[in-house]
Amino acid sequence: MLKRLLGAVLLSLVLASASHAETLPLPPNLVGAATPAGETYFLEAEARAAYFPLADNFVTQKNQAFCGVASSVMVLNALQLPAPAVPEYDPYTTFTQDNVFSAATEAVIPADTIREMGMTLDQLGAFIATQPVAVEVHHAADSSLDVFRAAARDYLSKPGHFVVVNYLRKAIGQEKGGHISPLAAYDGTSDRFLILDVARYKYPPVWVTAADLFAAMNTIDSDNENRSRGYVLIAAKP
Amino acid sequence: MLKRLLGAVLLSLVLASASHAETLPLPPNLVGAATPAGETYFLEAEARAAYFPLADNFVTQKNQAFCGVASSVMVLNALQLPAPAVPEYDPYTTFTQDNVFSAATEAVIPADTIREMGMTLDQLGAFIATQPVAVEVHHAADSSLDVFRAAARDYLSKPGHFVVVNYLRKAIGQEKGGHISPLAAYDGTSDRFLILDVARYKYPPVWVTAADLFAAMNTIDSDNENRSRGYVLIAAKP
Ligand SMILES: [Ca+2]
Ligand SMILES: [Ca+2]
Ligand SMILES: [Ca+2]
Ligand SMILES: [Ca+2]
Repeated sequence: MLKRLLGAVLLSLVLASASHAETLPLPPNLVGAATPAGETYFLEAEARAAYFPLADNFVTQKNQAFCGVASSVMVLNALQLPAPAVPEYDPYTTFTQDNVFSAATEAVIPADTIREMGMTLDQLGAFIATQPVAVEVHHAADSSLDVFRAAARDYLSKPGHFVVVNYLRKAIGQEKGGHISPLAAYDGTSDRFLILDVARYKYPPVWVTAADLFAAMNTIDSDNENRSRGYVLIAAKP
Repeated sequence: MLKRLLGAVLLSLVLASASHAETLPLPPNLVGAATPAGETYFLEAEARAAYFPLADNFVTQKNQAFCGVASSVMVLNALQLPAPAVPEYDPYTTFTQDNVFSAATEAVIPADTIREMGMTLDQLGAFIATQPVAVEVHHAADSSLDVFRAAARDYLSKPGHFVVVNYLRKAIGQEKGGHISPLAAYDGTSDRFLILDVARYKYPPVWVTAADLFAAMNTIDSDNENRSRGYVLIAAKP
């Protein structure tokens, strides 16, 4: 009870101190994309083929449970897959957080369930796999820091290849639960990945070390039969 | 009648040929941001302080008349101004194309009128000026290519400074009417500006030469008492 009260007081202080910044302050282990250090990481990144296609399609999750939906929409638009209609945009088409759902995605997980619970790593992989793309789901507990770093770096360096991560925010010093967002670049010099965080009302995109990110993926998800979180590798079908 | 039919046939062909690309093809004078040439312009750009704050807040216009609203929302979020509440994001706040309207913006131009007509350059400037920022509206006919290039390059190179342009798409080889979007960077080598086009369902961000962009701003807007289009310079108040 005292702990909960203290938490509320601390959150109020954090929100008050952010009244000009308008997003929550970052812990010292994270570097914002729009800072001088973040810009340097980007300019000297070893892998950034994923960045512009994703940045050009960056969206804010539509509600606090749609991080997986927003991440999927970004990747599908970045892949330039044939998209469903949007009445407001006729005759043009694009994936949105309203039209990405289909009979196939409802069979994976109903949109109403996502609205209440969000998605697990396995549901995210199956959700994206309803589209004509190649999808691999990797639980962190079945992987390793070195395997993850090599695979993610490889994907981020090739056109038409994307990585979406499912991690525990608290483990990288953020508020606070499980979250999903796409990776966009890798800088070998600092050994950091760029996360395009889809909760843009809450946090800016951040550069996080591979070790911190892997540790945050290597956490137990009680909504997924206590399996670990992890990453999804997505590629255009040849 | 024949001309209209021919136009419809050509648009169908264009849409058909774009069935994989999912956005309309670019004319040869424009370079997409996510192409190898576009990436090089960015990496070697002479002014790009505006880029990451805007890219981190890139949105798609909510309907085909809201290009000015979407551009304003991007700049206000990039400036990290105190933002209105969004019920879905409570306790976090951010500017959206739903909550950016106020008694002050309704006095400039009612949201319902924007939904029907879009905004003119002067309305755009007055709309943004309802927020605590310094705003300058420049009609192209009262400016020149050199004056515009120097001012836009200067703004794009300084944190907290932004440029929004109002131009005729047809004049840069796009489909087709008046449009509004933010600039994000300037490359002196190619003398090109990067437009973060908010009609993301229709066109990707493009690098356009200063001369082509200025000519497209130096066009008559019959919705604005036949004044020319132009650009708006926005800066955080010190
Ligand atoms: Ca590097
Ligand atoms: Ca499309
Ligand atoms: Ca240059
Ligand atoms: Ca905010």
